[in-house]
Amino acid sequence: MPHTIRERKPLLTRVRRIKGQLAALEVALKEGSDCSAVLQQIAAVRGAVSGLMNHVMEGHIRDHLLSPERTEAERAHDLEPLLAALRSYMR
Amino acid sequence: MPHTIRERKPLLTRVRRIKGQLAALEVALKEGSDCSAVLQQIAAVRGAVSGLMNHVMEGHIRDHLLSPERTEAERAHDLEPLLAALRSYMR
Amino acid sequence: MPHTIRERKPLLTRVRRIKGQLAALEVALKEGSDCSAVLQQIAAVRGAVSGLMNHVMEGHIRDHLLSPERTEAERAHDLEPLLAALRSYMR
Amino acid sequence: MPHTIRERKPLLTRVRRIKGQLAALEVALKEGSDCSAVLQQIAAVRGAVSGLMNHVMEGHIRDHLLSPERTEAERAHDLEPLLAALRSYMR
Repeated sequence: MPHTIRERKPLLTRVRRIKGQLAALEVALKEGSDCSAVLQQIAAVRGAVSGLMNHVMEGHIRDHLLSPERTEAERAHDLEPLLAALRSYMR
Repeated sequence: MPHTIRERKPLLTRVRRIKGQLAALEVALKEGSDCSAVLQQIAAVRGAVSGLMNHVMEGHIRDHLLSPERTEAERAHDLEPLLAALRSYMR
Repeated sequence: MPHTIRERKPLLTRVRRIKGQLAALEVALKEGSDCSAVLQQIAAVRGAVSGLMNHVMEGHIRDHLLSPERTEAERAHDLEPLLAALRSYMR
Repeated sequence: MPHTIRERKPLLTRVRRIKGQLAALEVALKEGSDCSAVLQQIAAVRGAVSGLMNHVMEGHIRDHLLSPERTEAERAHDLEPLLAALRSYMR
């Protein structure tokens, strides 16, 4: 079973938490909140998104690259999206 | 007028776009989408959040630190949230 | 006195420490050290470079943007390199 | 043959280029160069370090995690340093 299905519940919890943070940010902007609070809220969203990416990347590596059930061709195929995501962090 | 109020419309557009990306990610997880697509979607959310942070940071610097209407004390006070947000990027 | 001159000593100390880390990394690569150690050393260099950037950015903001001795035109001129450095972090 | 040995030459070229950038930064600080130039140089060093990390990470994944010559236990052992390096990027 792919990890994004096995881990669906904790992953959805993370995504919904980030949606909640963004909803709060939307209210803050509508209400003209102090800019300092807006900066802090965006930094918190960024941290939560990094946590989500880290969670999915680790699952991808364990399930798609390490698992003995995967053929060499399958592993090579699954490597590319990981490298693309890594590059987006290492610019 | 604070920049987060002057720029409310474009900032809300950015926030709503990110909310839309997260809603799509939520659907992808519910439907058990391929992990590669999930990685790509999270990387796109991350990029959009960085764009939002950059937009607010630049406005904060121009309005709160550069503006001649601000007293020295007000500028020093407004520096701290900027430095805190910067540090979250430079760990 | 510009902060990069006032802070020359601590900044040079940071730069030399990073040079030392790179020299150690060079030796590790020459001697064919274990890849895990190489990954750790590069992560440490990255952290040190972020610390250096944070130090210079904060000084730049305080001295060039906040200082009452600077004219509006000088501040606007000094904003651009800061925004360019910020954008390199927020891609 | 481990990738850090197979790729020794290009990796050493990258490390030496970064050392050169740091040596130039050291001169710039000694000579009291304009802060804008210092910011740009540090951003360039950061980009080069990211490129180096990306190069080693990809090699580590290909050689240590994907290679059929590695046992499951060896792959699990080699996963930890990769995850540690990833976490340093995803804070």
